[in-house]
Amino acid sequence: MAEQKKMVEEITSMDEDFAKWYTDVVKKAELCEYTSIKGCIVLRPYGYAIWENIQKIMDGMFKASGHENVCMPMFIPESLLEKEKDHVAGFAPEVAWVTHGGSEKLEERLCVRPTSETLFCEHYKSVVQSYRDLPKLYNQWVSVVRWEKTTRPFLRTREFWWQEGHTIHATAQEAQEETIKMLNIYADFCENVLAIPVVKGVKTEKERFAGAENTYTIEALMHDGKALQSGTSHYFGDGFARAFQIQFTDKDNKLKYPFQTSWGSSTRLIGAIIMAHGDNNGLVLPPKIAPIQTVVVPIAYHKPGVLEKADEITERLSKICRVKCDKTDNTPGWKFAEYEMKGVPLRLEIGPKDIEKNQCVIVRRDNREKIFVSLDELEAKIPELLNAVHDALYANALERREKMTYTAHSFEELKDIADNKPGFIKAMWCGDRACEDRLKEEAGVTSRCIPFEQSEISDKCVCCGKPAKKMLYWGKAY
Amino acid sequence: MAEQKKMVEEITSMDEDFAKWYTDVVKKAELCEYTSIKGCIVLRPYGYAIWENIQKIMDGMFKASGHENVCMPMFIPESLLEKEKDHVAGFAPEVAWVTHGGSEKLEERLCVRPTSETLFCEHYKSVVQSYRDLPKLYNQWVSVVRWEKTTRPFLRTREFWWQEGHTIHATAQEAQEETIKMLNIYADFCENVLAIPVVKGVKTEKERFAGAENTYTIEALMHDGKALQSGTSHYFGDGFARAFQIQFTDKDNKLKYPFQTSWGSSTRLIGAIIMAHGDNNGLVLPPKIAPIQTVVVPIAYHKPGVLEKADEITERLSKICRVKCDKTDNTPGWKFAEYEMKGVPLRLEIGPKDIEKNQCVIVRRDNREKIFVSLDELEAKIPELLNAVHDALYANALERREKMTYTAHSFEELKDIADNKPGFIKAMWCGDRACEDRLKEEAGVTSRCIPFEQSEISDKCVCCGKPAKKMLYWGKAY
Repeated sequence: MAEQKKMVEEITSMDEDFAKWYTDVVKKAELCEYTSIKGCIVLRPYGYAIWENIQKIMDGMFKASGHENVCMPMFIPESLLEKEKDHVAGFAPEVAWVTHGGSEKLEERLCVRPTSETLFCEHYKSVVQSYRDLPKLYNQWVSVVRWEKTTRPFLRTREFWWQEGHTIHATAQEAQEETIKMLNIYADFCENVLAIPVVKGVKTEKERFAGAENTYTIEALMHDGKALQSGTSHYFGDGFARAFQIQFTDKDNKLKYPFQTSWGSSTRLIGAIIMAHGDNNGLVLPPKIAPIQTVVVPIAYHKPGVLEKADEITERLSKICRVKCDKTDNTPGWKFAEYEMKGVPLRLEIGPKDIEKNQCVIVRRDNREKIFVSLDELEAKIPELLNAVHDALYANALERREKMTYTAHSFEELKDIADNKPGFIKAMWCGDRACEDRLKEEAGVTSRCIPFEQSEISDKCVCCGKPAKKMLYWGKAY
Repeated sequence: MAEQKKMVEEITSMDEDFAKWYTDVVKKAELCEYTSIKGCIVLRPYGYAIWENIQKIMDGMFKASGHENVCMPMFIPESLLEKEKDHVAGFAPEVAWVTHGGSEKLEERLCVRPTSETLFCEHYKSVVQSYRDLPKLYNQWVSVVRWEKTTRPFLRTREFWWQEGHTIHATAQEAQEETIKMLNIYADFCENVLAIPVVKGVKTEKERFAGAENTYTIEALMHDGKALQSGTSHYFGDGFARAFQIQFTDKDNKLKYPFQTSWGSSTRLIGAIIMAHGDNNGLVLPPKIAPIQTVVVPIAYHKPGVLEKADEITERLSKICRVKCDKTDNTPGWKFAEYEMKGVPLRLEIGPKDIEKNQCVIVRRDNREKIFVSLDELEAKIPELLNAVHDALYANALERREKMTYTAHSFEELKDIADNKPGFIKAMWCGDRACEDRLKEEAGVTSRCIPFEQSEISDKCVCCGKPAKKMLYWGKAY
């Protein structure tokens, strides 16, 4: 097992340096690679396969809830970006500007989309005339660009891949319902597909999306106690419609402004998977999005019958899960370490002695449990074990989050927790921006959300002591 | 049927003005919409659904032949684009340049990828060291930008969506085989999925991709007799590897340059579908990529039992094809015209009299044939009819192409055909660029390809009369 030790030693331990552990995992598991442009990454086959699995499942959920895919151009003319004033103020400082086409200077600068509200508005204006044209429930899978100063693979890259949903409705109520519906789909996806528990809530005004009347969020807690915003859903009211002069003739024959939403989730989710489930041996992938769900490793494969049996098992498993048989001449120890690093949920070992007994050894990636399984029971056992891994990942992440969620009754207590105990801090808030700013400056935490599930810790703001009605989650965040 | 007439009249007839017929179909079938940036289009739900179906099937073919998806950044630093001199000469005049990130001027200009050879080369350089790392068989589904002067929906847009495959191999032979293999996959896809017959061949040096040693192509013939290049596959030799200093240690322990290919097909294919199969009533979609394969139209739907029966049939059909039931209050005539416009392969009509007889009426989009089908036989009949539509589309397109393929023995004959008979022209060529240039200038045709299937028309070049060994396809092209 010398090779295994060697490979494992190549990753920095989580406790020693979490940030370095993260980048080690990203590189060694071959998820992505840097390029010569800061903050622009290459999604390598293994990382892209995870993204494809995320897309496939999430896209199915969008379509099942009545949404259609479209695709907008990647460029936004400067004058179009400027039409909604809050929106442009939020995004203009970080967009990439195209100024030339070939050798000619463009008459108007174009930015590469940082998000596409303005493009959807321009399109709605041309295709929405009557209540019969509403609602439009659109989504697109594209990459967007934000020229960030500080970057990190998957968590904050200058170009990132995402889906952005954009919908337009005849009534405010319908648009509000859509906003919540999509937040619930995100939460459902994180919990039931990625095995990551999330807190659902609404952002404070300070943390709202530029141009939104309300921003809803799901917040997940990472291994190091930092929060990761994992999906957001925005309600725009009729603000964009008024700015872009989008109107429709309603059933009562009156011209009205429609109501809009948008919602997005991105390749950040891959960062969430790494940091919610990973360990000191590398990635631990939730089975539903793992590119390889079971890896078959033949033991003493030069012995007669071993490779044939491994092939036979692989062929059988290919009908019930994503399976790969590693028949390279690397040692079993090397292979064990390699697929642990890559987070493959189940490893199936098959050698001459196993064949004699008509069995195989299955090792779970999450808890290393070793299980002897009769070859006759594989079709029943593998799906069961994949489900068990999913459930255990979720239970562990939930237990960790609960252990790392603290309650603060006073500013001093909050600052003490923030300084010494990584995690979520629940505390009351009066609603004033000044208190939010002070907690940021003096305790280094930001408001993550006003959770839907409220609990009254006290009746006073943790910061100023004034009456408070809302409990907030605070924390340090990616 | 007043509404039907009205809708149909809205499209210009093909014979009257083919270009206007094309843009009418694109708009009325709601495939795409213009934006305020010339040459940048919105892919609307119906157009995007066609693209999704193309992607799904083609991606399956790529994966089945051992390819993996990745994703490169959208930006290429100017110095990276310039590394291969032929390549930069071909693309630099038509790229969009990013010069600013937010308010800061970038140290180096970045172009938005017009194609990604240079990005793949930079990546190979970091991940290819040994023969064990080869081959890499990569593909990506992205959009690219070329700042064209003349634009047209799907056929030539400044931003277009495509897949670009990029592979790297230890030997020239393996790379050459890959180039041909992928050309064959494109041809297979066009013929067996899109029902469009293609001519396979190699481009002349003049028409080669910038930086390639050889470019292979599939050429399809449109309704108006113009050719459409529908997919290309390039062999690069080791030219890019030398320019980018990509080397690997081979089995004999020597440092060598690897060999590369790239191959691409794009949303142009949607243009090909429109112009190869469409008619004066609108789109005619090949069943395999049609977003709706069967539309169910209830007749006299206010009569008892009709809607229930339509729902029941729709539910049954949803298990065997992509089906939609139109229960809106539009008239049947309006619906007939609407789904003809949208090219839906089969229309199923069900009314009170049909229900009495336990039957329905199925109308084929391609030839308008009306078929009475027992409701007990739907599951057998619908797939059979979808296949029949596919086969008929292919046979018609092939017959038309054969009728529109002419043979020229002299320059005068070629010019006469070019002036008067739209289509392919087969003629001999000596191999000189000067003759190619003269045919372009004086007869307005370009060389489409040197077809794999050669036939010797004469032993003299159609242009200069010198000895000629190759037969070429010439034509006017999109």
